[in-house]
Amino acid sequence: MALIVQKYGGSSVADAEKIKNVARRIIRTREADNQVVVVVSAMGDTTDDLIKLSYQVNEFPNKRELDVLVSTGELVASTLLTMALHGMGFPAISLSGAQAGIKTDAAYSKARITNIDPARIIRELEKGNIVIVAGFQGITEDMDITTLGRGGSDTTAVALAASMKAKICERYTDVDGIYTTDPRLLPEAKKLTEISYEEMLEMVTYGFKAINPRAVELGELFSVPILVASSFNDNPGTLIHKEVSMEIRNKVRGIAHDFDVAKITVVGVPDHPGIAAGIFVPLAEAGISVDTIVQNASIKNITDLTFTVAKSQLAGAMAVVEPIANSIGAQKCVGDPKLGKISIIGTGMQNAPGYAARMFDTLSKEGINIQLITTSEIRITCIIEEARVKDAVRALHRAFELDKDN
Amino acid sequence: MALIVQKYGGSSVADAEKIKNVARRIIRTREADNQVVVVVSAMGDTTDDLIKLSYQVNEFPNKRELDVLVSTGELVASTLLTMALHGMGFPAISLSGAQAGIKTDAAYSKARITNIDPARIIRELEKGNIVIVAGFQGITEDMDITTLGRGGSDTTAVALAASMKAKICERYTDVDGIYTTDPRLLPEAKKLTEISYEEMLEMVTYGFKAINPRAVELGELFSVPILVASSFNDNPGTLIHKEVSMEIRNKVRGIAHDFDVAKITVVGVPDHPGIAAGIFVPLAEAGISVDTIVQNASIKNITDLTFTVAKSQLAGAMAVVEPIANSIGAQKCVGDPKLGKISIIGTGMQNAPGYAARMFDTLSKEGINIQLITTSEIRITCIIEEARVKDAVRALHRAFELDKDN
Repeated sequence: MALIVQKYGGSSVADAEKIKNVARRIIRTREADNQVVVVVSAMGDTTDDLIKLSYQVNEFPNKRELDVLVSTGELVASTLLTMALHGMGFPAISLSGAQAGIKTDAAYSKARITNIDPARIIRELEKGNIVIVAGFQGITEDMDITTLGRGGSDTTAVALAASMKAKICERYTDVDGIYTTDPRLLPEAKKLTEISYEEMLEMVTYGFKAINPRAVELGELFSVPILVASSFNDNPGTLIHKEVSMEIRNKVRGIAHDFDVAKITVVGVPDHPGIAAGIFVPLAEAGISVDTIVQNASIKNITDLTFTVAKSQLAGAMAVVEPIANSIGAQKCVGDPKLGKISIIGTGMQNAPGYAARMFDTLSKEGINIQLITTSEIRITCIIEEARVKDAVRALHRAFELDKDN
Repeated sequence: MALIVQKYGGSSVADAEKIKNVARRIIRTREADNQVVVVVSAMGDTTDDLIKLSYQVNEFPNKRELDVLVSTGELVASTLLTMALHGMGFPAISLSGAQAGIKTDAAYSKARITNIDPARIIRELEKGNIVIVAGFQGITEDMDITTLGRGGSDTTAVALAASMKAKICERYTDVDGIYTTDPRLLPEAKKLTEISYEEMLEMVTYGFKAINPRAVELGELFSVPILVASSFNDNPGTLIHKEVSMEIRNKVRGIAHDFDVAKITVVGVPDHPGIAAGIFVPLAEAGISVDTIVQNASIKNITDLTFTVAKSQLAGAMAVVEPIANSIGAQKCVGDPKLGKISIIGTGMQNAPGYAARMFDTLSKEGINIQLITTSEIRITCIIEEARVKDAVRALHRAFELDKDN
């Protein structure tokens, strides 16, 4: 008998009918002689609704309280799913994050799992129960409730699969797999049958919202295969795992994009040690997340420093950076809110030249100007005008033959 | 510095504005140099809504799961109230029943508090926090969530007040006190300034829905004074306590009524030992709650046995009793669904004759027929026609001078 961990997202349990549908899917897995542990998210928009409610009583809700508040959404979904399984004649029990033994640090709203004690889950499985765990939540040493941040139920599921050495972690939402690029942007996008952890990580970090990157990292660390599939049909999904078949190792696997990019350039910075820290430490203290950073080669000890932030943080970042730029004798500070980001990703790029050239050539032929470039071993990212992101995705998808069967 | 426990019902925290209003009331108590522990119910109709949701997935929801589900309502209210206090500049923390140390047995949906470990509450009070406890819930030895049954937040509040030796337990709802009879039925009903535990218990048991009887029992057992008042105004409420002023000890204190009474009479029962058990044990096993039981004096070893049940249980009770009546040789079984119950209550009745006589005389003058009579030391109850309940309340209220100042 194998142990399978399944995770169902909020859209999969949005109402009573969908909850029953999920119960039937769980039963199919159980009937195939598996032990099943299910992690469930809050129904539909419950989490957002609870957060809105909190803003009605306090504009700046305390994070400890907010965590208790939003954690109730997953408790509701887990008990209802358990009741639905009972109604279909199957023994099941719901467990809160605390009962499931998910211990975290006390970083409310973005807690990290410190360890998992699955004793209660194991006891319930041994009694023959299907175990339904409330996702997204854990408990501190002091018995305070925490949540794991957006997409935290993915993390719960993969962490449980890792700690219990499950055969696989199956993750079900309203999307039936990982595509070569966003199908809403480009209808000819193809679904991948498999993808490596590294590639998946680069894709989610660079604009794919498909799965929580922490879940993928955990999957990689503990070698948990993760299946991404839909709860609304039986289409084959995408398997995220370590070894990707030989024949597809030399290809670009996907194109990620992100419309939410703003750029700040500090022009004419005197180039001496401590300048970068003088800018980025205050930004971090102001809670501004800086993405790409590029510093040009210094000419006559004068350099330009460019970095990107989310559009919503541009004004805040300018307010922090402008006085600093003045005080260090920079010429000026320029902000541009209308940018986007495209990335090509694939482990095949590691040891093969020519990918960057083909990417730049493709964009150039489309008349798309590249403003910044950053790369990792398996990714090349260009910052371009926001208005040209869609054209860039289409052109690159074709240039790297992602519209052909993979 | 005195410790005050306050409890706010669901209607008092039904929306964000009402929650802020409650926060302001709590602050007034805190500012008067008190330590404050607050017990809160779920917002408005949350509990009923959650129960409805459960019936959509399973007609017979499992009680363990249902308890987790409905317990989330109080978590939501307690965190929102805490956030509202923060917004007004006051340190506060919410605690779940489990965190507040409320241990119960495992009788899901009607758990009993086995003991309270207030260590965490005390720690938080010492830090200067106002402590907001989610009512209605506790935790078993196995760390499973339980609920205390309808009105359970009252029980939470009084039990906490008892275990922490609070000066008083103040219970706030949308009703501003205990009245001589239901003011919706009889507008001239008067609010009582005080009432004894015993009188209050008889009143709630005999039809007043004002407060959970378990809370009153606990209050009596541990001598916790309970103030019943409104969260929507500053009218003086009613104090439930031990010693009621001398001058009102010889009066009827209130008139309770109940429209939900059905009667079954088993006619011509051969009177020998075991007959009552033969009828009432099967009824209990069928989950039917029997209220008043009257057995007439036996004539020639033949007796009539009469008892009352809630109207909704009449058909079920008849189905259980008719075959038994046949098998023991009774003549017949008669059901009457159209009855009501009125009671006069007051500790003054204990040692003073004449109350029963005045009650029967008053009803007789109104032309109201008494079908059954039962009494306790401080209560006389008559079962009458449902259609005459209102007339009976009005006549008795006047006869016992409850419309005069008390």
